[in-house]
Amino acid sequence: MNASPISAPAEEATGLTAEEQYVWRSYMEAATLLEDRLDRWLQRDAGMPHVYYGLLVKLAESPRRRLRMTELARYTKITRSRLSRAVTRLEESGWVRREECPSDKRGQFAVLTDGGYAVLGQTALGHAAAVRQAVFDRLTPEQRESLGEIMRIVAEGLQPSEAGADLPWLR
Amino acid sequence: MNASPISAPAEEATGLTAEEQYVWRSYMEAATLLEDRLDRWLQRDAGMPHVYYGLLVKLAESPRRRLRMTELARYTKITRSRLSRAVTRLEESGWVRREECPSDKRGQFAVLTDGGYAVLGQTALGHAAAVRQAVFDRLTPEQRESLGEIMRIVAEGLQPSEAGADLPWLR
Repeated sequence: MNASPISAPAEEATGLTAEEQYVWRSYMEAATLLEDRLDRWLQRDAGMPHVYYGLLVKLAESPRRRLRMTELARYTKITRSRLSRAVTRLEESGWVRREECPSDKRGQFAVLTDGGYAVLGQTALGHAAAVRQAVFDRLTPEQRESLGEIMRIVAEGLQPSEAGADLPWLR
Repeated sequence: MNASPISAPAEEATGLTAEEQYVWRSYMEAATLLEDRLDRWLQRDAGMPHVYYGLLVKLAESPRRRLRMTELARYTKITRSRLSRAVTRLEESGWVRREECPSDKRGQFAVLTDGGYAVLGQTALGHAAAVRQAVFDRLTPEQRESLGEIMRIVAEGLQPSEAGADLPWLR
């Protein structure tokens, strides 16, 4: 069952204690494999990488299915340049279009098209099933709750509100 | 403090329950921000992306600081082509060299050079400090333990031992 026995490498090679290393490596393995799994699945089933799916979901939940590009980058935690490339690809697929903001010449909106909404509808249940199979179905209710708490703490710690913080969507 | 208030979007947009969405979004935010933070830090401090660091650590821990390319891909959970590109870059930096396997013409080893070992030594404490600041320092001992258990379960579930499983290092 266990395809990756954990060795206990010398602390001096990594600067982490054996316990920290166990946790960190488990996290890195899970995160790498999970991203690979969801990306493969979405590429095959919907012809898009995992990060695009998150953008479509966020737009679908937004009023009038549109969001300022800067807000969309902040919500999805990616850089502006990465978002811009993604939106260009999503425009080519006909799933998103850009609209200038009438009240602010610097602002630009990303708008989910009907085609994008339809693709999302065809993909959402499969995505949810993939996430459940990979994560939720394997965990107890206590572990699910604990995972949410831990990840919320880490996510909030990594986005300080100080001006000048090095956050992806501010680059 | 909380820069990203969690909304409770309609279940039909994502196929996940509100509770599952909260956990999943927290995870996705934390994972995206953590990868960005470590990647930025390593690029600035050591001139390499985060995934390269993992390769150097794994080689440093291996007997005679060398590992078969196929094993290195399996340990780091990445595809062979991604590993090959990374090792080419690491060769250009003088941190890794490739060696043919004398007993198996198909096999190839990646070997950590003295330069690579030195870079790792200069980087490891900073990497450990970055991981502690982002993750461990924010969690209770119980949460750290829980995170390790949960991530080990997820990581093992994602690498089934069946022949033909779609695993990155087998592609």
